[in-house]
Amino acid sequence: MKAAILGYGNVGKGACDIIAQSNTGLEVKRILARRMRPGMEDIITLDFNDILNDPEIEIVCEAIGGLSPAYQYVSAALKAGKHVVSANKELISHYYAELNALARENGVCLRFAPSSGGGIPWLPNLIRAKRCDSIEEISCILNGTTNYILYNMTEKSLSFETALKGAQDAGYAEADPSADIDGEDTRRKCAISASIAFDVALDENSVDVFGIRHITAGDIAAFKEMGKVCKLMVKAGVKDEKIYAYVEPTLLSSSSLESAVPLNYNIGSLVGRSIGKLSFYGQGAGSLPTGSSMVQDMIDIKEGISGAPAPRSTAKADNSAESHRYYIRTSASVKGLRSISDGDSKFYITDEEYTVAEMHEMAAEIRKSDPNAFFAGICG
Amino acid sequence: MKAAILGYGNVGKGACDIIAQSNTGLEVKRILARRMRPGMEDIITLDFNDILNDPEIEIVCEAIGGLSPAYQYVSAALKAGKHVVSANKELISHYYAELNALARENGVCLRFAPSSGGGIPWLPNLIRAKRCDSIEEISCILNGTTNYILYNMTEKSLSFETALKGAQDAGYAEADPSADIDGEDTRRKCAISASIAFDVALDENSVDVFGIRHITAGDIAAFKEMGKVCKLMVKAGVKDEKIYAYVEPTLLSSSSLESAVPLNYNIGSLVGRSIGKLSFYGQGAGSLPTGSSMVQDMIDIKEGISGAPAPRSTAKADNSAESHRYYIRTSASVKGLRSISDGDSKFYITDEEYTVAEMHEMAAEIRKSDPNAFFAGICG
Repeated sequence: MKAAILGYGNVGKGACDIIAQSNTGLEVKRILARRMRPGMEDIITLDFNDILNDPEIEIVCEAIGGLSPAYQYVSAALKAGKHVVSANKELISHYYAELNALARENGVCLRFAPSSGGGIPWLPNLIRAKRCDSIEEISCILNGTTNYILYNMTEKSLSFETALKGAQDAGYAEADPSADIDGEDTRRKCAISASIAFDVALDENSVDVFGIRHITAGDIAAFKEMGKVCKLMVKAGVKDEKIYAYVEPTLLSSSSLESAVPLNYNIGSLVGRSIGKLSFYGQGAGSLPTGSSMVQDMIDIKEGISGAPAPRSTAKADNSAESHRYYIRTSASVKGLRSISDGDSKFYITDEEYTVAEMHEMAAEIRKSDPNAFFAGICG
Repeated sequence: MKAAILGYGNVGKGACDIIAQSNTGLEVKRILARRMRPGMEDIITLDFNDILNDPEIEIVCEAIGGLSPAYQYVSAALKAGKHVVSANKELISHYYAELNALARENGVCLRFAPSSGGGIPWLPNLIRAKRCDSIEEISCILNGTTNYILYNMTEKSLSFETALKGAQDAGYAEADPSADIDGEDTRRKCAISASIAFDVALDENSVDVFGIRHITAGDIAAFKEMGKVCKLMVKAGVKDEKIYAYVEPTLLSSSSLESAVPLNYNIGSLVGRSIGKLSFYGQGAGSLPTGSSMVQDMIDIKEGISGAPAPRSTAKADNSAESHRYYIRTSASVKGLRSISDGDSKFYITDEEYTVAEMHEMAAEIRKSDPNAFFAGICG
């Protein structure tokens, strides 16, 4: 089966290398790149039409990233009756309903395992579990950059700034790390994972998100006192027929499986009614792992293995029924709460549970007077 | 697609319940049981021939356990052109080459995910990873009973006897717990997992095994001093074109993912050349989880998803090139080693690495004079 790869960066090159090394029955006929490489004149093209108009190419793999021109290329490929694999969380999260519908209308497959979880077969196993089970909740660490920062802050007692610098030096964080540390990257992966888990097209903008930009060494020290480890968690589930979905720093028992996820590794967990908790752990990024995930999707298409069911409807997350206790650190005073410590900065542990919706609203309010405020959900 | 379930115990009933509750396109037409149940006269039979001779039944699921009559039933079903799913680690491990060949000769599928890892899609993901990667090593916790015992000894500082009694009371250990605590159950799962990982039919008797029957609260206390957690690990890999495969108590860093596996949970990990480490975590036993794994295998057969490649050859494990350091606790003196403590019992930490083959031979020798001696490999 002949394929084309759009984008010859990290992921695209990883996928090409894996296909070249293994015996998959797949062949990369063309690669769309921004510039020609010596010795690759036969395979690289700078013109997408060379791929779109080639009837031999049955699968188009998109590893460009961003919304445009990825959206135009993927739409055109689906309309031309070509299967698509995408590693692009931004694209898939933003156009989930539309691209899924387009694939179905044209009788082709759209798969996107590498978009959420990198090298981990998280989405394929979520799809597989649903064949004979119903998913009650998902909870995941899906951003390697923030996990790397939080891990080093915890293990080496680093400041946020030093840990971020380390992540940048190691190539895990970009020069502008905002999409990672503010949780936008994770929000997209949350929307994609929840859409599959609950058979909807979940509006990414309805997912409440709080990142780790303002976490301090003092926060980490307080968590250690509590016997907790902080991770940036994706949580989504169904309660009272509403879908909740949010991304927030979460304090977990230091003996939990999630607390043992080191460095830039990721983990995705599902709770099924029959199967209970299943977790999938591995490299959430990187050329060969994510490239491998792309190739696995291609093989699934070649073997006719069914993908995610069509979304029943579009949906917005409703976090007004999901609640837990919170840690809040701010120099502002919080109405109705008693502060616990009066050192460099005060923090609060809520006695009662707040709904996720309440807490994210309250945090927005607090940050008007204290832009550096930080909060984290307390799990268990 | 119509199926028959052999055995209406824990796993067989779990599989039936899941098929009844979900929309899989599968139908359980007959169940082979040892006695009739009121109201189930149409579905239960006491005679295997009712299943064998029913041309409508395309899949036979074996959940009887033991070698006989499971072997006769499974062989007959394969010869009759029926697909087989088996939850029976003893059967699959013992007849790996023969049953795989029989399935191929008759153009049908033999799958056995529930035999190793219970509800965890460990074997299916191992098979999936191999489609475009080569497996360098597997390392797993595949026995819930011993994990439950070790977990409670570690968390609650229990003696082995009290922890075993607790496992029996909770239904995780049998009245005669030998197969679990002596590692025989794990040996079979090791042989099956390694056979898939390395494309062979691995002789189960060549797998070196040491169990946890003689571990004491004193050992656990020593491990805590060392910052280590003890788990009964399966390890297998390829080195110098030889396959190593063994089961032994292993001391892991307390921050490792494996150390965070609680209670009776299991974990299976693979290291692939491209993908790096991938881990799969969940319930390693139980009616619904293991039943679910059986149903997933049935769906894979129905969807035509390919199973494990045919073994290239039979093979024996060779543990003469795989080495690491060891903890040895014995009242006997060990030639060439200096004991570390002289309290209730002496123990040794080897300064240099021993091969697994050497250590298992040495332990057999030591146990002639000290039947209660215990050892554990040291990882990292």
